[in-house]
Amino acid sequence: MKNDITIAQEARLEPIENIAQSIGVEKDDLELYGKYKAKFADSIWDKVEKKENGKLVLVTAINPTPAGEGKTTTTVGLGQALGKLNKRSMIALREPSLGPCMGIKGGAAGGGYAQVVPMEDINLHFTGDIHAVTSAHNLVSATLDNHLQQGNDLNIDTRQIVWKRAMDMNDRALRNIVVGLGGRMQGVPREDHFIISVASEIMAILCLAEDIYDLKARLEKAIIAYTYEKKPVTIKDLNITGALTVLLKDAIKPNLVQTLEHTPAIMHGGPFANIAHGCNSMRATKLALKLSDIVVTEAGFGADLGAEKFLDIKCRQGNLKPDAIVLVATIRALKYNGGIKKESLSEENLEALQQGIVNLEKHIENMQKYQVPIIVTLNQFVSDTEKEIHYVKSYCESLGCEFALSNVWAKGGEGGIELANKVLYALEKKESNFKLLYPNEATIKEKIKTVATEIYGAKAVEYSQKAEKTIEQIKALNLETLPVCIAKNQYSLSDNKDLLGRPKDFTIHVREMYVSAGAGFIVVVTGDLMTMPGLPKKPAAENIDINEEGKIIGLS
Amino acid sequence: MKNDITIAQEARLEPIENIAQSIGVEKDDLELYGKYKAKFADSIWDKVEKKENGKLVLVTAINPTPAGEGKTTTTVGLGQALGKLNKRSMIALREPSLGPCMGIKGGAAGGGYAQVVPMEDINLHFTGDIHAVTSAHNLVSATLDNHLQQGNDLNIDTRQIVWKRAMDMNDRALRNIVVGLGGRMQGVPREDHFIISVASEIMAILCLAEDIYDLKARLEKAIIAYTYEKKPVTIKDLNITGALTVLLKDAIKPNLVQTLEHTPAIMHGGPFANIAHGCNSMRATKLALKLSDIVVTEAGFGADLGAEKFLDIKCRQGNLKPDAIVLVATIRALKYNGGIKKESLSEENLEALQQGIVNLEKHIENMQKYQVPIIVTLNQFVSDTEKEIHYVKSYCESLGCEFALSNVWAKGGEGGIELANKVLYALEKKESNFKLLYPNEATIKEKIKTVATEIYGAKAVEYSQKAEKTIEQIKALNLETLPVCIAKNQYSLSDNKDLLGRPKDFTIHVREMYVSAGAGFIVVVTGDLMTMPGLPKKPAAENIDINEEGKIIGLS
Repeated sequence: MKNDITIAQEARLEPIENIAQSIGVEKDDLELYGKYKAKFADSIWDKVEKKENGKLVLVTAINPTPAGEGKTTTTVGLGQALGKLNKRSMIALREPSLGPCMGIKGGAAGGGYAQVVPMEDINLHFTGDIHAVTSAHNLVSATLDNHLQQGNDLNIDTRQIVWKRAMDMNDRALRNIVVGLGGRMQGVPREDHFIISVASEIMAILCLAEDIYDLKARLEKAIIAYTYEKKPVTIKDLNITGALTVLLKDAIKPNLVQTLEHTPAIMHGGPFANIAHGCNSMRATKLALKLSDIVVTEAGFGADLGAEKFLDIKCRQGNLKPDAIVLVATIRALKYNGGIKKESLSEENLEALQQGIVNLEKHIENMQKYQVPIIVTLNQFVSDTEKEIHYVKSYCESLGCEFALSNVWAKGGEGGIELANKVLYALEKKESNFKLLYPNEATIKEKIKTVATEIYGAKAVEYSQKAEKTIEQIKALNLETLPVCIAKNQYSLSDNKDLLGRPKDFTIHVREMYVSAGAGFIVVVTGDLMTMPGLPKKPAAENIDINEEGKIIGLS
Repeated sequence: MKNDITIAQEARLEPIENIAQSIGVEKDDLELYGKYKAKFADSIWDKVEKKENGKLVLVTAINPTPAGEGKTTTTVGLGQALGKLNKRSMIALREPSLGPCMGIKGGAAGGGYAQVVPMEDINLHFTGDIHAVTSAHNLVSATLDNHLQQGNDLNIDTRQIVWKRAMDMNDRALRNIVVGLGGRMQGVPREDHFIISVASEIMAILCLAEDIYDLKARLEKAIIAYTYEKKPVTIKDLNITGALTVLLKDAIKPNLVQTLEHTPAIMHGGPFANIAHGCNSMRATKLALKLSDIVVTEAGFGADLGAEKFLDIKCRQGNLKPDAIVLVATIRALKYNGGIKKESLSEENLEALQQGIVNLEKHIENMQKYQVPIIVTLNQFVSDTEKEIHYVKSYCESLGCEFALSNVWAKGGEGGIELANKVLYALEKKESNFKLLYPNEATIKEKIKTVATEIYGAKAVEYSQKAEKTIEQIKALNLETLPVCIAKNQYSLSDNKDLLGRPKDFTIHVREMYVSAGAGFIVVVTGDLMTMPGLPKKPAAENIDINEEGKIIGLS
């Protein structure tokens, strides 16, 4: 089998104008970025305003394992398969961050014969959206430190600055730093931290804003520090909201690319799925709904984090109603959840499968709480046996879900026809009665408890003293009607990454909390939280090169 | 008079494909970035290879003063004027950095009716080149610190790391920092510094590279640190040269934009004019020379810094031969050099003019040493009197220079016709016998002395002990054949910014030196050096906004 980049480079791409034309978008409503990427110009919005919305399909997954689940690959493959069935469909994905691409994980544009292209550009600078977020983020930091240097009229307590600096890089040495050293003309010394750009509240804001004026209004509200009197200081107080908005004027425009089979794909925005809501932008999803009959989108990590936030934050804020949820699993990952080591996953093992399928079971139960039809799909591997597949299929059907095998990595859209047909069946025959998990009016603790018990399966929630204090602070700020965005490890339903399968009788420990007032959610941190990844011993960057023919190699 | 952004926004822009067509470039050789910006695709190079080169005109200036000289404006206006005279001409400029744009200076795309457009995009993220430089630069830093964290096999002395981090922002609090705090999993603590991205050696490399393979070869050579045995450690040792090259694959492609009068303009690269060579990219200049009969380009700061480096570094490395040099002055700046305060520059004052014109005199003498025809142009202000203008004209002509008034800020190309005609006269009738100021084989101290005495007018050069040591180190590295790149304050010919006019009997103090081995020059630092600017009390960012019609305001 060829590797991803080889497959991507061998593909014949359509000029992006042709892709746009296939969804009724004229060239004048595009801003081209080379031949195969474009942004939708602002002029598109008036033209689609009165169109009916298409159907919205969310792709999510069981808890991630080292075995790999292929959520993005399935999303892309499903889009391709719907295209093969002559459905007017689009894909709406997040755009990848450069940090992981140079670090450990590689890119994020699908895999095998289910990829979004041009793969190299998408995984590198793409259309510069994340760079714009980085610039805007750091303009806040520079202005804040300049404010301290120029006399601190706002009376900011330098020990209570919550706005960190940002860089789109895996750079552990920037996690904890001291800035402003060198004497009185060189700034005010203080402790500081860098986060990776996709963890910036500006990224979350960009991804939830309805338009550029909403963007501006949200930016104004973001809390950057507290005064010595513990009053919040917001971006508005720095007088740079206009400049930030201008820096983001292009970044807010959704990007159009294509799959290997020329399915139109919007890739736009990429907020973290722990301290933020982990899905592509509101504008991208809404535009895709106007431009096609079926929109396939995905959320980060497993359904406990990504889907929960997609549904309780993004759908709540944007008044979106998903029509179906595709839950991706693999036999290998289920066996891993059943306690099998990575090395032995290729052997048939029905017992382990039975042990591990409880992880899938819990995610099915969880998604059913939102009253949206569910299709479980097994992303097929050559090592999967017929008995194993049969077992999973019967199990899912006994829980009232549709079930489909898919093999889009090896076969592209063709490998997703069964899944596409099941999705179409669900969209036509089953009703979505989408409901949010909790009302805005619930208290903060009620919201957290609801997610912890109903979704994670915890028996209780414990709060640190610091978290308790922050709850009082949030109440005082009159922000407790915001939804909660819980940052939890992605590997387990609990806050202990080693508890696989379907852990029970566990407690969720809330370590700290803060408000992303611009994004419009309360971040609840459980366990350790990593907002600036590090590089591994041998970073992925070491494999990347350009060969004598000018072709990029080693990008994955 | 309208402000710059209003004039720029009222302009009717040609689609960039039409501009390309006007210089014989087909749409297939462009990569569009929206409707009015494009990169030249790699396919252009084979097509122009056999074309004759056009003539090269360098625009430079007297030492900058708070009165403003209008060097970029003159460059743009001259290009426009040549267009009006139906000459096939192009402009080749640097691209602006975001830092100053949000800080104190405003943008850098000319002014009045001599601007390059789309002004907003150019001054904001443009085509992402500087962001790519920032990413590449910081990948080096992240990999270096990761190397320390993973065991430091290269035996790097953390006190001798010369590679700083970079950000395209004016952020004084990042000048002196400590990184890697927080315990053994959070990196190795050490002192570090941020520079503004345009001060990155990667920017200098990008701007001097002949093609992507030369870029890669230069990147490999850049010195990032020394070992405990004082051996240099280069980017090559980190195994990421391929990844850096890939990150810069689009940034190395020159950008095409247009002037208000549709003159084709290449804006590409923007290295600092103190610690780097301060002019647009080698590839941009060379491509422009292939695509037009006359290329007008500019260099940073005054002629003592910008032109000297353009001639002794860029022309040396790229084997370029300028055909004429335009020296920009203003009556106001000359009077300022004659000791008049900024507030009183509007009053006629022949005595002050006579006092201050020695600054212009010295720059004329300097440029004559390169044996290239010189045209002095006065960028006209309403306060200039006829007597003053006449005085400067006679003075220049007595020194054997052509002279022309220009008024392109108010009148666009029309205001530059006199200048254009004088430039055309010089190109046709006067011969350029361009010669470099010093040979590669001269010793480092001979090179520095030559620039200091011949160009600055110093009587001597003094070296700190540290600088003396570095000279020995550079000799040991076999790098002494490289040209020197002297970082000096831009306001005076001396290294004391307060000595205006034509200072004499002064000494140049070499504080420290280092090698930009990838860029291919030896940086010689005199006096204080600022590689990370700060924000003023009221940053320019505070004026920038987007209005109800979606128009950007306050960008200057």
